Parts: sequence; C-alpha cells; structure tokens
Amino acid sequence: MSEFRGYTGKSLEFLKTNNIGVGDSVKILADLTYLGIIMPRYEHSDDKHLVLKLKSGYNIGLEIEKIEKIEKIPSPEKNIEKKERLEKNPALPKILLLSTGGTIASKVDYRTGAVTPVLTAEELNSSVPELAKIANVDAEVLFSEYSENIMPEHWLKIAEKLKEYSNSNYSGIIIAHGTDTMHYTSSFLSFALAGFPIPIALVGSQRSSDRASSDAALNLVGAIKFLLGCKTNGVYIVMHQDENDETVACHVGTRVRKNHTSKRGAFQTIGDNPAFIIVNDQIQRNMKDDFFRIKEFQPRINLNTKVALVKYHPGYDPSLLGEIIKMNYSGIIFEGTGLGHIGKTMYDNVKKANEKGIFLGMTSQCIDGRVRMTVYESGRDLLNLGIIPLENIIPEVALVKAMWALGNSKTLEDVKQIMLQNIASEISD
Amino acid sequence: MSEFRGYTGKSLEFLKTNNIGVGDSVKILADLTYLGIIMPRYEHSDDKHLVLKLKSGYNIGLEIEKIEKIEKIPSPEKNIEKKERLEKNPALPKILLLSTGGTIASKVDYRTGAVTPVLTAEELNSSVPELAKIANVDAEVLFSEYSENIMPEHWLKIAEKLKEYSNSNYSGIIIAHGTDTMHYTSSFLSFALAGFPIPIALVGSQRSSDRASSDAALNLVGAIKFLLGCKTNGVYIVMHQDENDETVACHVGTRVRKNHTSKRGAFQTIGDNPAFIIVNDQIQRNMKDDFFRIKEFQPRINLNTKVALVKYHPGYDPSLLGEIIKMNYSGIIFEGTGLGHIGKTMYDNVKKANEKGIFLGMTSQCIDGRVRMTVYESGRDLLNLGIIPLENIIPEVALVKAMWALGNSKTLEDVKQIMLQNIASEISD
Repeated sequence: MSEFRGYTGKSLEFLKTNNIGVGDSVKILADLTYLGIIMPRYEHSDDKHLVLKLKSGYNIGLEIEKIEKIEKIPSPEKNIEKKERLEKNPALPKILLLSTGGTIASKVDYRTGAVTPVLTAEELNSSVPELAKIANVDAEVLFSEYSENIMPEHWLKIAEKLKEYSNSNYSGIIIAHGTDTMHYTSSFLSFALAGFPIPIALVGSQRSSDRASSDAALNLVGAIKFLLGCKTNGVYIVMHQDENDETVACHVGTRVRKNHTSKRGAFQTIGDNPAFIIVNDQIQRNMKDDFFRIKEFQPRINLNTKVALVKYHPGYDPSLLGEIIKMNYSGIIFEGTGLGHIGKTMYDNVKKANEKGIFLGMTSQCIDGRVRMTVYESGRDLLNLGIIPLENIIPEVALVKAMWALGNSKTLEDVKQIMLQNIASEISD
Repeated sequence: MSEFRGYTGKSLEFLKTNNIGVGDSVKILADLTYLGIIMPRYEHSDDKHLVLKLKSGYNIGLEIEKIEKIEKIPSPEKNIEKKERLEKNPALPKILLLSTGGTIASKVDYRTGAVTPVLTAEELNSSVPELAKIANVDAEVLFSEYSENIMPEHWLKIAEKLKEYSNSNYSGIIIAHGTDTMHYTSSFLSFALAGFPIPIALVGSQRSSDRASSDAALNLVGAIKFLLGCKTNGVYIVMHQDENDETVACHVGTRVRKNHTSKRGAFQTIGDNPAFIIVNDQIQRNMKDDFFRIKEFQPRINLNTKVALVKYHPGYDPSLLGEIIKMNYSGIIFEGTGLGHIGKTMYDNVKKANEKGIFLGMTSQCIDGRVRMTVYESGRDLLNLGIIPLENIIPEVALVKAMWALGNSKTLEDVKQIMLQNIASEISD
C-alpha cells in the first residue's frame, strides 16, 4: 500500500513536494484553517483535490489550488497507542471477543483506508472506555476478512474455536464480524453448536468507515450488556435497532437478515420483533421460547457445501437446473414464488434431481411467511416431485442448514428429518 | 378432472352411492343441517370426511359416519349465470379489464378447486355490484395461468395487447394477474410500454380461494377508483395495504415486491410509502415525480431472456458461474451482499464473463438501499472487473430490465446506458 494511495498527477506532486502522505495528520490553511488526517482516494478520482478526515469524522475535499499552506502535525492517534495497559478489575465478569474482520475490527480504516486486524483488548478498551467498567474483555484475532470473503471453511474455524471455550468461565462470547454475511455465519454456528452453554453475540458495524461516526461502540457495549443480562443461551446478532443511538436490537441468529445496504438499523428479525431490545441498561425480552430446542451441547461441526440456491423467476432456464444436477450437487434449496411455487417448465428437471437422490427443499422469495404447498395445484405437483416444504425458514438460513445437515447425515431420510426439526429457532410460529 | 377429485376409499364410495360429486350443492343432515357445495380434497387427505363449502365461504369437514342424510339441491350459482346482461350507463367512464389468470380470475375455484377463466364483464359486475356504479367494465380473457407459470412470452402477449389499446378511449386498464410473479410482469410492462398514455393497474387476490373471504372485490374496486382518480400514467400494482378492508395501496410497478407468502398486505413498496393510498373514496398521493421519465409513448416490446440471476452466498461455487458463461448467457445480474459485493473466489470467472461481452450488473440481496461499490476494496475490484452498479434497482426488476434492455439494444454500451437510465421510476432517491 503506497502512502500516496489513489493520488495521481497534480495532487500526488503536491503531496510529495510537501513531504506528506496518506495517514499523516496535517494543518491546512485555505479559506479556513483545517486540522485532520490525509485520506486515501479512490482510483477514479480527479487529481485536483486532497481528502481530509476532520476530527468530527467527516471527510472533506480541498482544492489544491486554494491551499495556501500545509504542514504536518503530530498524530493524536499515536498518543492513544502509547497508553499503558489497562488494569483489569477481577470482580467484573469475563467476556471473550473473537475478531474475524470487517469494519468493526478496523481501527486503522479511518486513517489509511485499509482493513488490518488491530483489535487487541487494550485498543478496544481505550477506544470504548465504557467496556472496562462492565467487563474484563479478552480479545483474540481469528482472521481478518471482509465478510463477503468469509467462506464455509471460516465458519468451521470459528465453530472449532468456540468449541474450545465451551467449558470456559466466560459469561459471554462476542464475535466481531463484517455485516454482509453475518447472518449466514450466525446460522451455521446456531446449528453446528446446538446447545452451546455460553451466549454468543455477533457484532458488526454498519456505518462504513468514511462516515462521521461509527456504530461499533454502541453495538459492542450493547452486546456485552446483552450477554451479561440475557439469562439464556443462543447465537444472536446484536446491532443498532434504528438510526438513533439509544436502542440496540438482539436478533435470533437464524431469523435475521441484512435488509438495507447502508442504514445502521439494517438488520431485521423476519416476521417478528427482535428477541431482545436494549435501551440503555434495560433489557426487554420478546422471545418466548428457548433459542436452542436441543438442551444438551451437541457439536456437529461438519459441512457439505454442494448445495445450490435456485431463485426461481419467470424465464428461469430449466437447463441451468440441469447443469446443477450434472455437477453432482447434494442439495438444492429453491427460493420459489409465493407459497412455494416454481413454473411447470422446471418439473422435468426437478424429477431428475429427485431420482438422483438430491435433497430438494422449498423456501419463498417473499422471505416473510410460511410456504404452504397444499393450497394450489402447483404446490401439490411439486410435493409429488419430492420437494420438501421448509416451513418459514428464511432462504439463506435453509441453504446453510442444508449444507450442515448434509455434512452430518448418512442418508437422505436423515437430512429430510433434520431439515424439518426446529433446532435453533429457525422455524417460528 | 374427475368429479370426485381427491376422494378415495369410503368417502368416494359414499359420494358414488348418493350420486353426488364435487361441485354439487347439497343439504346434509348430521348433528346440524348444513347447506353448501362439495369441495375437492387434496391427495393426501383421509377417506373419512367430506369437505363442504358453506355459504359464508368457510370450508368444514364432515365425518361420513355421522351423516344421516345427504341430498342434492339446485345450485344457487346457476341463477346468477342466468341473470340478464347488466345495462351499461353511457355516462360512466370506460375501464378495460384483461384477465391473465390467478386466483382473482377464478370464480369457480370456490366450487371445484380448479382455476378456469370465467371472468366476463357480466360475471364480474354481478359478483362485485359496486363496479357497475362507477364504471363500464369491458373484460377480455388473454389466457389463464397461475402466475408461477407466467413466462416472458406471456409478458410479450400482454404488452402487445395493451399496445393495441394505446389510442383507445378507456380511462384505465386493469390486468387481473396471479400474485406470485405480478411484480415481474409489472416491471416488464413498465419498460416495454414506457410512456403508455393510459394508467394501468395490475390486480390480484392474495387470499387463496379456500379462505372465508377473498380480497378480490376490494382490490378491483380500489383499482378502478385509482385509475379514474390518479391523474397520472404508469404501471401500478393495486392490492390491500394491510389486513383491514379499508385501505388499498397502489405501488409503483417497478419498486414493489411480494414480501409475504399469505398476508393480504403482502405487497410492499421497497424503501418508501406506496405511490398512492386509497381509503374509501379518498386518494392520497405520495409519489412526487411522474412514473415515466420518458414522456412520449415508446413501445419497445422485445426480450432476450438469456439473463441469469446469481445470488451470491458464502460457499457459492464459482464453477457454477463458469457454467453460466459457457451456456452463452447475454447478461448476469448479481444479487451481491451488502453494498454490492461478491467473494474474491468469483473474480476469475467474473473477468471471463466480462471478456466475453456479457452484461454484468450488481444489485443487493439486502433488497432495500443503494449499491455503492466505491466504499470498500471489494466493490472497487468488482468495478474494475466490469460490473455495473445498478443504483437501488430491486434485483428482480434489474433482471427483467436486463432481459428487456438486451432485447432492444445492438451494443453492450447501449445496454449499460439503458440499465442506468431511470425509465419507469425503477431507480428512486
């Protein structure tokens, strides 16, 4: 990574002349006096501006021609890094924080635009001072991936690591995770670690790092309050409830989706209120049942990733389904229309898939609501072709569950039975 | 279709002995006296019960052993069919109703469980008497398909038929349509008939016919009120706003999704309020801009259906994308994660697709919110690989638009330009 990242032509020349690079703290004299950090630029940017991150967190572009003077000043960040290690208070409960990457784990993002795993307990405690008052947080970096690059093999690593801590004296475990695929990971952990005896909260931050204020602190503090106060087990996603900074929502990890690309309150429980809501120090419980329907800890940490998600639409080419069959997939999760339908044009290949012993499950692209395949003729036809209606399991969750069920079963009948068994609240009333 | 459909064993024998079949009106003496119509049964039903549709619309199961007497009575339906043709009031505005099938077009569903196109103007007016008071409705049956069987070739037929009426004196056109894929059809019509001079409303009924009361009447009356009072053009979906029978929502046909498998208020405008809301006779307009951004009627009724919808998820096998490339697809719409991301494992095949001249568009499986591919490194990588970020176009709409754009363009550059041009309010602020 160059220290002039993204700067070209005039702007690059300007920085070099002044011996200043990306990440430097500077004082700039133009129409006003600005204090801030030089930010990297994107590759398609012009060469007439510098981008400065102000103390408020906002980025501004400054036209080079209008800059009268620029000078380097000592970085305020350095002071924080030099701080002594925080004392732990042995009277406080213990929380384990496992970091997997994503915006939440990237303190340096603000300065250089790069995501690097810098999350030590000390840095965390110094950046969110409230944490040290409520818990002793031990942190461990598992890996550092944007969540679009989190793969099933990462799920296995996280699950194996959690299994190591199943007998520990932690009161709760936080997994810092990118938000894009957080709900896929939470689903896998819910199945693979059914009955896990310590509550688990996946936490991310939704505001991209170039925004004024990150939601990481509120989400982290909320997650710890939740883990210490929820008096239940399970795998949850803990994030802002909405745009305000007062409310944190704790979603059942198998009933949640990222439903907005950028809003803080992007995560939503499908078809219900969040399981828990935290307003300041109050924890409101909405969940009626236990998270795990299996009471004893039964780790089954295996996967068969040969499962395809087929989202049906008018004009879906049945020969594409034919290719999936030829590619020796073990399972197909259909995202059908409405109550769980796909067009007649698909029937021949569905029949072939069934004859080949491929697990066939039906969910709905409506996302909310239950599939019911006995109402219309199409549904009844598909039942006869061997498709299993998967109640109201969310399509993405059904996909993960099928990978997991296929990885932990010997026969197709076992898979069918597991898919309809409510293991981790993935099926709701 | 047998007149004993679904009946087996004892129940079949009972019907045959009494010379009664599915669809017959009967009087049954058991614990009480029941009047109703014999309904078909599903294939997995037991053979101990008859199912009777009562006048209230409810279905009940009656145990055969407890039936003392059963006798056929004249069908009340027959009387309606014999009714004289309704007088038209020439002072009222004219509405055209095109029927394509689905629950809304299936009056007979209540009697035999089969969907047949029986929707004539007379039957419609006699079943929804309020219609004749507000408009003269001419009805035409185009075809009769459940909407999961509506294919792009049906879209073309509907569009060609509408084009014939572009110079007519109808004040509005209703398309009766199954709900499952109604939003795909409305999207296609919005693009193919950009600038169409008469407002169009797609109407369905969400309650399956075996429920007590259908929402068809309210939706139809609401649609006519909307078409006569909206004072704008465009293609809308008009359906119940929620569970109550007072409010009808009119959604922009390119910004709407079926978001629940069974609720009456299943259709939702994504990221905004519905364009219009009708409460009794009041029309409330929420839409700020015109529906069509193209002012003149410019029919472009062509399609290229070789477009794949690739919903990315952890564990998506890149070789499946490879197969899509080999199958000579012309376009791929990605449903990426978050702001518009797919994993690094996909890059090689994305590069191949781009080199082959396949149109590559990015949407988000979050459904709500805008894709922004300059925020994170992954997004910038994908931009460099030739993927076009499609603003906040809903994935299903992007798919339909790509099929349409590819069918009406000569070069890939044209397709790219059309995909980012806001034609029918598919891109919102």
